[in-house]
Amino acid sequence: MKDLLGGKGANLAEMTNIGLPVPPGFTITTEACNAYQLSGEFPEGLEAAIEPALADIEATTGKRFGAQMNPLLVSVRSGAKFSMPGMMDTILNLGLNDETVQGLADLTENERFAYDCYRRFIQMFGNVVLEVEHNVFENILEEAKEKQDVHYDSELSPESLKWMVGEYKKLIARKTGKPFPQDPKEQLKEAIRAVFRSWNNDRAIVYRKINRIPDDLGTAVNVQSMVFGNMGNDSGTGVAFTRNPSTGEKKLYGEYLMNAQGEDVVAGIRTPRPIASLEQENSQVYAQFFEIATRLEEHYRDMQDIEFTIERGKLYILQTRNGKRTAPAAIRVAVELAREGLISKEEALSRIEPGQLDQLLHRRMDPNALLDVLAKGLPASPGAASGKIVFDADRAEKMGNSGEKVILVRTETTPDDIHGILAAQGILTSRGGMTSHAAVVARHMGKPAVCGCEALKIDYAERAVQIDQTLYPEGTMISIDGSTGRVISGTVLMIDPELSGEFKELLVWADEVRRLRVLANADTPNDAQKARDFGAQGIGLCRTEHMFMDPARIPIVQAMILAQNISEREDALAKLLPMQEGDFYGILKAMQGLPVVIRLLDPPLHEFLPNVEDLVVETTELKVTGNDPLALRNKEGLLRKVRSLTELNPMLGHRGCRLGVTFPEIYAMQTRAVFQASARLVQEGYMIHPEVMIPLVIHQKELVMLRNLVEETAKAVMAEQRVSFEYKVGTMIEVPRAALTADEIGTVADFFSFGTNDLTQTTLGFSRDDAEGKFLQAYLDKKILENNPFAVLDRNGVGKLMRMAAELGRKVNPNLELGICGEHGGEPSSIEFCHLIGLDYVSCSPFRVPIARLAAAQAAVNNNVQSK
Amino acid sequence: MKDLLGGKGANLAEMTNIGLPVPPGFTITTEACNAYQLSGEFPEGLEAAIEPALADIEATTGKRFGAQMNPLLVSVRSGAKFSMPGMMDTILNLGLNDETVQGLADLTENERFAYDCYRRFIQMFGNVVLEVEHNVFENILEEAKEKQDVHYDSELSPESLKWMVGEYKKLIARKTGKPFPQDPKEQLKEAIRAVFRSWNNDRAIVYRKINRIPDDLGTAVNVQSMVFGNMGNDSGTGVAFTRNPSTGEKKLYGEYLMNAQGEDVVAGIRTPRPIASLEQENSQVYAQFFEIATRLEEHYRDMQDIEFTIERGKLYILQTRNGKRTAPAAIRVAVELAREGLISKEEALSRIEPGQLDQLLHRRMDPNALLDVLAKGLPASPGAASGKIVFDADRAEKMGNSGEKVILVRTETTPDDIHGILAAQGILTSRGGMTSHAAVVARHMGKPAVCGCEALKIDYAERAVQIDQTLYPEGTMISIDGSTGRVISGTVLMIDPELSGEFKELLVWADEVRRLRVLANADTPNDAQKARDFGAQGIGLCRTEHMFMDPARIPIVQAMILAQNISEREDALAKLLPMQEGDFYGILKAMQGLPVVIRLLDPPLHEFLPNVEDLVVETTELKVTGNDPLALRNKEGLLRKVRSLTELNPMLGHRGCRLGVTFPEIYAMQTRAVFQASARLVQEGYMIHPEVMIPLVIHQKELVMLRNLVEETAKAVMAEQRVSFEYKVGTMIEVPRAALTADEIGTVADFFSFGTNDLTQTTLGFSRDDAEGKFLQAYLDKKILENNPFAVLDRNGVGKLMRMAAELGRKVNPNLELGICGEHGGEPSSIEFCHLIGLDYVSCSPFRVPIARLAAAQAAVNNNVQSK
Repeated sequence: MKDLLGGKGANLAEMTNIGLPVPPGFTITTEACNAYQLSGEFPEGLEAAIEPALADIEATTGKRFGAQMNPLLVSVRSGAKFSMPGMMDTILNLGLNDETVQGLADLTENERFAYDCYRRFIQMFGNVVLEVEHNVFENILEEAKEKQDVHYDSELSPESLKWMVGEYKKLIARKTGKPFPQDPKEQLKEAIRAVFRSWNNDRAIVYRKINRIPDDLGTAVNVQSMVFGNMGNDSGTGVAFTRNPSTGEKKLYGEYLMNAQGEDVVAGIRTPRPIASLEQENSQVYAQFFEIATRLEEHYRDMQDIEFTIERGKLYILQTRNGKRTAPAAIRVAVELAREGLISKEEALSRIEPGQLDQLLHRRMDPNALLDVLAKGLPASPGAASGKIVFDADRAEKMGNSGEKVILVRTETTPDDIHGILAAQGILTSRGGMTSHAAVVARHMGKPAVCGCEALKIDYAERAVQIDQTLYPEGTMISIDGSTGRVISGTVLMIDPELSGEFKELLVWADEVRRLRVLANADTPNDAQKARDFGAQGIGLCRTEHMFMDPARIPIVQAMILAQNISEREDALAKLLPMQEGDFYGILKAMQGLPVVIRLLDPPLHEFLPNVEDLVVETTELKVTGNDPLALRNKEGLLRKVRSLTELNPMLGHRGCRLGVTFPEIYAMQTRAVFQASARLVQEGYMIHPEVMIPLVIHQKELVMLRNLVEETAKAVMAEQRVSFEYKVGTMIEVPRAALTADEIGTVADFFSFGTNDLTQTTLGFSRDDAEGKFLQAYLDKKILENNPFAVLDRNGVGKLMRMAAELGRKVNPNLELGICGEHGGEPSSIEFCHLIGLDYVSCSPFRVPIARLAAAQAAVNNNVQSK
Repeated sequence: MKDLLGGKGANLAEMTNIGLPVPPGFTITTEACNAYQLSGEFPEGLEAAIEPALADIEATTGKRFGAQMNPLLVSVRSGAKFSMPGMMDTILNLGLNDETVQGLADLTENERFAYDCYRRFIQMFGNVVLEVEHNVFENILEEAKEKQDVHYDSELSPESLKWMVGEYKKLIARKTGKPFPQDPKEQLKEAIRAVFRSWNNDRAIVYRKINRIPDDLGTAVNVQSMVFGNMGNDSGTGVAFTRNPSTGEKKLYGEYLMNAQGEDVVAGIRTPRPIASLEQENSQVYAQFFEIATRLEEHYRDMQDIEFTIERGKLYILQTRNGKRTAPAAIRVAVELAREGLISKEEALSRIEPGQLDQLLHRRMDPNALLDVLAKGLPASPGAASGKIVFDADRAEKMGNSGEKVILVRTETTPDDIHGILAAQGILTSRGGMTSHAAVVARHMGKPAVCGCEALKIDYAERAVQIDQTLYPEGTMISIDGSTGRVISGTVLMIDPELSGEFKELLVWADEVRRLRVLANADTPNDAQKARDFGAQGIGLCRTEHMFMDPARIPIVQAMILAQNISEREDALAKLLPMQEGDFYGILKAMQGLPVVIRLLDPPLHEFLPNVEDLVVETTELKVTGNDPLALRNKEGLLRKVRSLTELNPMLGHRGCRLGVTFPEIYAMQTRAVFQASARLVQEGYMIHPEVMIPLVIHQKELVMLRNLVEETAKAVMAEQRVSFEYKVGTMIEVPRAALTADEIGTVADFFSFGTNDLTQTTLGFSRDDAEGKFLQAYLDKKILENNPFAVLDRNGVGKLMRMAAELGRKVNPNLELGICGEHGGEPSSIEFCHLIGLDYVSCSPFRVPIARLAAAQAAVNNNVQSK
């Protein structure tokens, strides 16, 4: 029922069904919301349906909506299919007016409580429904506290609260030109409208964009009778997870505040107490909550995030949902739930969002580093980050987008700060707990966060933060460690990640079910070893151009390019040969027993030469000063050569195997280096599996010509070295024509490797360098494209060509091996597509190998294909 | 039988069958040639088969091969499936040796004749078979003439010829280390081998490349008994066409030389006499030849090119073939043959190679121009050209390739000059007739040529030509008129072509059978009118960017691009609006009654701004001199802006409808201009059919968005102007993704127009600018690609996408109109492909419209599809 009732509404209905203490209520469907978005009006029948639903609540609770005696108050909350915490609006205590407030006071014999509820209600209603700014209400609150000379809200007297109610009503009349509505039914209708509208507020839109939630789902609205955590010191409210959302440990984890209501806990305004304290404070309620939490986890077969309220000692469950968690927690919870028998291994695998694992596979602080620890807060979201202090989200976004690393430092964060959190390396707050907004959002985004670090004295006006006696102005470099809560001066050395025991276990399960092999893209023995450690089953892409860029080699490479004739070029190539042989020797050795796919030179040659514009500047300077005619002549000569190699569209230019066609001697040298290294390793007793990959092929005849060159070189080297070894020769499929003629190319290839970076560029006619800086964002904003096609494979366009190439290639060559080595090879949705079209392997960067292993397993589980 | 016997062999066999006087002989098949190319050896059985074939000739002629009494002499000639005149080798008089020469002398009672044959044979054999250079034989010939003090070869005495024979034999022994072979059978085998080898000489390879003749056909070898045109003044040899190969006029056309042999006529060494003179000289032979020529034309149902020899008054036909002809002649011959009832209209259409028509559609000299005529030669190949005088083929090639226009000026040309003829604008020779090498090749290539212009005194050493008393050094600009034979000083004003009556008639026939409509690409009212005159049925591509480049507009366009905000941009657009409206008004008016497809702005905006490198130079100059800080600041600002718009791969960048997505106001202005012009024309009573074309679409949603913009603008303009008109909105298919998702895009398009220039670039990953300058030639030379894919549509790659798009689009939208507007729309093979995949129209440059009409008709005829 989640589609119709939203997550919250469906859970409330279900909890009521299984007999949990849930305040009675009803849910307005997402369909009504969508109808409202279209017409701006309530759909027909909605108002009529609300009446009997309210009457049901009245019957259950014995209270009456709008009655002075025993009045029914309700909460009105959003609840979408996918949880969007804090993004949409909520109104509590609805039903209060100048009359019912008195009834509430009489009923509870607590005038202070009643007026506290009333002033909260007016503020929320005023802010959310009537759109009066938050801070003008806060000013009146501050004035009331000053007048009475108290520090905390809870110290305000009934008189102060009554005064505030009066001031709030005046404020609303002044701002809106109308008095605060006293009719509870009108309040309810307006509140429902406001929640509907909040589906399209800026925060919600950004959140959906980040989390890829479709815009047309709409939100349900939950109307529920109020229970009160602020009815005195035997009342309270809290939030708890059935397991630790940071680590996954199976232990109740949460916070509560006594004599507080609703948003007080999650808003981080007061620092709450840990849930364990409740055992001392009220062991009976704790035991009941513990029992309910266990039942809910078993019922939903997942870690739960539960909101509860204690009203005068009685426990109510307001909400439960699957708890958001860090990646390590997600893994531990899934593995332990499977071990506990609550879910199957396959289900455990499906529970992990592979993209989330990214955070585990990045670097963390070197535990042996000497740290200048400035302060300590709560370890709110694991991982470590360094960056410049920034005090507001706008500046964080601006600096972050221009490539600077920043840490967003705030007393607390609100949903309005999302864009800044997104752009920052990490978050540091001085207030708020482990379930505060900053903590929840940071964990979800996989950003490190330290929260509630009370040693910080932030002065927004001065744009500086004081810690102890020292002032740190905006721009100071700091580091935070979200796993320990430490705040550290300056930058810190980071080290490589290691996989936890549960993570390794999960990946073993993944390996059992996946059909796709996972290889890695690596250009050095070091990267190759790292890939192997992460479980890579070979190298799917070893780029040889990076080896050419080595500073010790670049002069030789340039001499090779600028050679006036073939003999000069062969001299330079002869110098490069032993260097390349050494490169391949190291990589093949590191990967012994596994395949290593080596791509021959791919980029256009001018990438190895000085830049034209620099040369133009230097030439012009020499010309204007006229001091050094010889230098000018040389520089002009170089400029001419570089210019003759410069291309208008290098992406579509003289590169890839076009270099092999025009300068076969370059490919011959590289091939010889591969095979000489292979021969040495065979002589030394290693098992090696070299595979030579020809890039940018568009026609069978290119591959025939270059395959011949490779085979002749192999034969020659084997004869010279008196060894023999197996090898393969294949091609990248990265230009549409190659995919379209795969039934020709497939006859002369041992393997196809889809180069989806280039294939995306050519299939969409998008130069990645230009698109990402210039127009791609407009395409995403205007929803012409759902995703950046360079991140998530474009199944309809590029994918269609891949499917065609796979089918055509296999038709003529049933043994053809098929893989992918573009960046999409490490992206879960793209990996699923590779599974669906029957590729044999994906290849991705070493750090993404575990993600790919999991994503490949999920693809197999979700698409119900038998594992091999 | 042409595949096996070659053209010449098949014709000889056929002529023998119909009873013509053909010297007896036999043909060695192309299969034998191909076997020889592979193994370097005669295939099994070939030698054995030659023996009885020779015996048959001996039986028919009563002569014996190698016998001193009545010796049989033979010619050994190449003969491929497709005629390759002069490209391969021929040997005449084979069978002569020191003994048989005496027998020939006795038999003919003409010692002079016998030794003349012998010295010719030794020279040919020495040159062709033994590879002794031509000019060393010529030196001996010159020496003999000097010794005897005569001017012409025919004046040499028997003694001189005998002396030459001796010298020739010594020369061969010295050069080859072996005596000249005396055994006629050995001579024959060697000669056959040499003809086989000549299939792969450089000239033949170049010729096949130019004429797209496959390399694996091989040549047949024709061995035929000799008849002698040099047996005295009652003997002769000649070449004649049954109709005039320049004009097509139905009248015998040709030349002959008395007392001459074989190649003397075509080699252009002596200037021969026109065939009409034969009627006076020998009316009986002329009548017999006339009768045979008529029979041959009727038999082959085409204009014939006939070689004949008169041996002591008896006529022999040595060869007949379909004659090469100029484009006007081809048209006239085809149309007249059809009128005469010899061929059908469809056959007449198929007879014209559409590419050849190009020469008719180019400019010619203004007949009213005042010309400084320097000399007059033979009008050997029609058309006019201007260029610098160049005296050798190598230099002509070099200058031609670097973009200079040259006229190749030679005493005569040989097959070794082909590369120079190819690179020249036209050919001028001082010797040789209408059937000389220069004339034949020039007509075939469609280049203007003036031959036999005896007023020229060419001095190769001084690199100058003297005409009358004036010396014209190499590099002097001249013009030639190949239609009149005039040689003119300097350049000459050219005028537009007009279609001949036969051409028009042929095109009417074409229009009757073709299914494809033919539209034109035109950006101005002038071009539109020209297109209409040539029979265009509308404008298939009106590019709006050329209108932006107008010098009066470019400052406004730049202001529009550099606008800091949308209101600045709209100010500039408001200034452009009336200008664009005027453009469209003119074009729509010129094409009234016919559709006009207007493409909205396509190129990246930086194309309208100054060049980065120029700005870098200017900025650096200002920086180094330091004189003008203000100018420096402005220049730096401009440079920054231009740089921010500069792209790494502009071809794949921010252009096409991406501009419309990011700057809708630009497309809105253009659309408004189209519709305001339309509204005016409707008010003025014109029938107009505007169609708006959105370029570079890759996704249905782009087209949805921009189609909405167009429709809203149309609605607004119609309301403002109180008129209504029909219009269409379609898209270019020029990126693979558009083709792949044509079933989505097709639902929102009225038409697809294949932009095959860009589609070729993206499908092959070939930047045209870079490929044509850098690596495409290597791909053609190494035969990886058969054709330049930008000239001839790549059916296997690009074509596959087109076919897919056409099918997918029509599936979802049966009314979808399909066309092509890339340059391929004017190329015959590509037009055929468009016909095959069911497009509705092709669009090409105005001058190519007649070609496209014919090619479309041929596609329909050849593919046997009923005309609409």
